[in-house]
Amino acid sequence: MRPIHIGLLGLGTVGGGTLAVLQRNAVEIARRAGREIVVSHASSRSLRMAPEALARVAMMDDPFQLVAQPEVDIVVELIGGCTPARELVLQAIAQGKHVVTANKALIALHGNEIFAAAQQYGVTVAFEAAVAGGIPIIKAVREGLAANHIEWIAGIINGTSNFILTEMRDQGRDFTDVLQEAQTLGYAEADPTFDVEGVDAAHKLTILAALAFGIPLQFSACYTEGIGQIQPQDVENAARLGYRIKQLAFTRKTEQGIELRVHPTLIPAKCLLASVDGVMNAVLIQGDMVGQTLLYGPGAGALPTASSVVADIIEVARTLTTDPHNRVPHLAFQPGELAATPLLPMTEVTTAYYLRLTAQNKPGVLAAVTTILAEAGISIAAMLQQQPESGSYQVPLVMLTHPVQEQQMNAALARITSLPDIADEGVRLRVESLD
Amino acid sequence: MRPIHIGLLGLGTVGGGTLAVLQRNAVEIARRAGREIVVSHASSRSLRMAPEALARVAMMDDPFQLVAQPEVDIVVELIGGCTPARELVLQAIAQGKHVVTANKALIALHGNEIFAAAQQYGVTVAFEAAVAGGIPIIKAVREGLAANHIEWIAGIINGTSNFILTEMRDQGRDFTDVLQEAQTLGYAEADPTFDVEGVDAAHKLTILAALAFGIPLQFSACYTEGIGQIQPQDVENAARLGYRIKQLAFTRKTEQGIELRVHPTLIPAKCLLASVDGVMNAVLIQGDMVGQTLLYGPGAGALPTASSVVADIIEVARTLTTDPHNRVPHLAFQPGELAATPLLPMTEVTTAYYLRLTAQNKPGVLAAVTTILAEAGISIAAMLQQQPESGSYQVPLVMLTHPVQEQQMNAALARITSLPDIADEGVRLRVESLD
Repeated sequence: MRPIHIGLLGLGTVGGGTLAVLQRNAVEIARRAGREIVVSHASSRSLRMAPEALARVAMMDDPFQLVAQPEVDIVVELIGGCTPARELVLQAIAQGKHVVTANKALIALHGNEIFAAAQQYGVTVAFEAAVAGGIPIIKAVREGLAANHIEWIAGIINGTSNFILTEMRDQGRDFTDVLQEAQTLGYAEADPTFDVEGVDAAHKLTILAALAFGIPLQFSACYTEGIGQIQPQDVENAARLGYRIKQLAFTRKTEQGIELRVHPTLIPAKCLLASVDGVMNAVLIQGDMVGQTLLYGPGAGALPTASSVVADIIEVARTLTTDPHNRVPHLAFQPGELAATPLLPMTEVTTAYYLRLTAQNKPGVLAAVTTILAEAGISIAAMLQQQPESGSYQVPLVMLTHPVQEQQMNAALARITSLPDIADEGVRLRVESLD
Repeated sequence: MRPIHIGLLGLGTVGGGTLAVLQRNAVEIARRAGREIVVSHASSRSLRMAPEALARVAMMDDPFQLVAQPEVDIVVELIGGCTPARELVLQAIAQGKHVVTANKALIALHGNEIFAAAQQYGVTVAFEAAVAGGIPIIKAVREGLAANHIEWIAGIINGTSNFILTEMRDQGRDFTDVLQEAQTLGYAEADPTFDVEGVDAAHKLTILAALAFGIPLQFSACYTEGIGQIQPQDVENAARLGYRIKQLAFTRKTEQGIELRVHPTLIPAKCLLASVDGVMNAVLIQGDMVGQTLLYGPGAGALPTASSVVADIIEVARTLTTDPHNRVPHLAFQPGELAATPLLPMTEVTTAYYLRLTAQNKPGVLAAVTTILAEAGISIAAMLQQQPESGSYQVPLVMLTHPVQEQQMNAALARITSLPDIADEGVRLRVESLD
C-alpha cells in the first residue's frame, strides 16, 4: 500500500514532537498500521527544527494551501488557539480530508460545528491529544467504557496547577512563590491565567463531559475557579482533616442536571487520585457497571502529546476505507442521539464544604457562627480547634460541613462574614468524597 | 438498522453479568452503537438466572448448535477454560462469525491458532475482558499507545494475590490465614493454585507482552513464582527499606531478549503502583515517547468484566462492514510483522534482590556472606541490622543488592546457604525500581 501522507500544520512543541515520533518509530508504526506514515507537507510560521528532519517534507508558506493539497490524506492541526485553526480545520474537512488535532480550545469552543461538518463530509476529526496529553483517555471513555452509564468523572488535568499545589503541600510554600518557580522551570506560561484560573482544565472537562453523557459541547456553561486564593494553612488544615487540595475538574450527572465545574477541591488523602503529584495528570471515572477506573500519565510535553497525535493518525489511517456511518462517533454517541440534559448552575450544585474564617478571640463568636449554619440547615462534619498565635486577638475557625446546596452556603456565608467579630471574607473550598 | 444478535456461550458470573449489562443499559448502548444489541441465543450447562432475563432469549442445549445459528452475528464465549471453548471458538470463526471472549487461558494458550483462523475467515476475535477485567488495557496498549516502542509493562493483575499481600501488610497476618479469609469472602477459589502461584497473572502477562512487543503468544516461556513463601517479616522489612511487596507481572524488552515473569517483587513504596491495594488491578506501561502511563480499576467481578465484554461487542458491531485488512490487528502488529525476538530464560534476567538469611549469632558469619557476594561481583545496596530475639542464637540477615544476573545470584546463594552458620534456604525476592 502507498504511504499515508500527513500535512502538518505547526512545527512548534507538539508539531516538532509529532514529526520526531513519526520518524523515530517509523518501522514500529508501519508494523502496526500496515503501511508507512510520512509527513509529506508542513507549514509553520517560525522554523526552529534541524534541516535534516525536514529533508523530505515539502514546506508551504500558506497553511490554507497545505489543506488543499490533493496528496495530503490527513491534516494534523497543531497550531493551537482558534484563529486560524478553526478555519483551517473546516477547510480541510470541506476538502474531504481527515483531521487530527491536539487543540482543546478549538474542540471545546467549536467542536459542535466541526463535528457537524465532518459528519456532512464523511471524514473523521480525531482529538485524543486534546485531553490529558499522552493518556488515552478519549479512547477509554468513548470506547473502552461504552457499556456504562458514566456517573461522574474527576480529573487532575492541568499539570501547572497540580505542580503548584504539590509544591505548596510538600514544601509549605505559598502560591506566588511556587508559581514563579513553575514559570522558571517552564511548567507555567509567562501569562499563567489559562492554567491557574482553570480555563485550560475547563476546555478538557467540557470535552470529557460531552463524551461521557452524550451532550453537546458547552464550554460557556463550565464553572471555573482558580487556585490563587489557597493559603499554605489551607493545605495544612486539609492534611490534618485527612484530605488533600487538588485543582479538580469534575462533571457529574444528577437527576437535576449535569454539573460541570473546575475548582480547588478537598479529596480524601487515601484515594489514588490524591497521590497524583507534580505535573502528572489523572482521570478517575465512575461507571455504573465497571465501578471506578483511573488513568494516569503525562498530561503535556512534546513527546507524550505527540504519542496521542500519532495514535490518532494510525487510527484514522485504518478508517480510510471504512463506511463513515460505522465509525466511532466523534462525541461517543451517534450525532442524532445527543441529549438536551440541562447543565446545573453552580448555585444549585450540592457539595460538602471546607470553611476557614478568621474570628475575634472572644466568647460567643463560635456560637454565632454555628447558629447561622444550623439555621441554614448546614451541619458540621468536623472542626479544627486552633490556638491563636501568641499575641494575636484573632483565631482561625476551620470546619468541614456535610453536603449542602451552594446557594444555601452562599447565603449562610454572607450572614457569617457580616458578623462584627468575623474579620475577613474567609476561604470556602468544596469537598468531594469520590466514592 | 436491524439489531445485532448475540449468541451467548455460558451464563455463569460473567455471562450473567453480560446479559445484565446489555439489558440494563440497552438504551445508552444503542445511542452509542447506532443500533440495538440483543442476546438472541444462549447456551449454559446450569441455569441460575431469573426467567424474565431470558424471556426473549432462545436457549440451546448444544453450544455447537448455537455457534452454527445463521441469525447469530457475534458469538460471546464466557465458558472459560480451553475445552470445549477452543473448539467452539474455532467453529464460530469457521462459520464466519465474530467472537468476543473473556477467556485469558484460551487466548494465552491457543491465541496464535485462533487469530490465524480469524485472519483466514476475515473475522474479529475481541478479548478486552481477558486482561484486568473492567480496565480497557488491551485497547490502551494496542491502540492508545500505538506510536510507542513499549519498553516494559508492570502489572498487578491478580486480585486474589493483591488482596492477600495487602492484608498481610495492613494487618501483619500470615499468608495461610489471609488466604482462608479470601476463600471465605469469595476472593479466592477453593483451589487457589492458579491465583497464588501466578498462573492466572501469567496468562494475562503473556497477552500483554505479545501486544506490546509484536511477538507471538508464548505462555509456556513465562516464568512464574507464587507468593506462598512470603512471611510477615518480609513485608515488614520491605516497608523499612522503603518498598512494598506486590505480586508483579513484568515484561521488558532488552537487547538480550524479552523478559516475561510473574513473581513477588519489591517495588518503591512511593510509586503509584505500590498504592494499588486489595482486589484492585493496575497496569503501568513505559513507552519511549509517552513515558509512564498507568491504568487502574477492578480486575474481576461480574459487572466490571461484562463492561469490557460489552465494549468489545459494540466495537465488533461497528466493524461488521469494514474491510478486514484495515481493522486493528488482533495482536497490535500486522500478522506478517510479528518478530521472533527471543524470550530470555530467567537465569539470564538481571534484577536487584532482597535477601533474608537466618544466621548463627556469632562473629564472622556476616563476613563470610559478604565475601561470597563480593567474589560473585554482587554489591550490597542496603542492609537491615536486626537484634536477635531474646534467647535466640539466630539472627536474620536482610539486605538489598544492586542488579545482578539471576544465575550469578543463584550460584552465590548456593554457596551462602551451604555455609555451616547459615540456618536455612533463606528468602530471595526480586526488586524493581520501575523508573
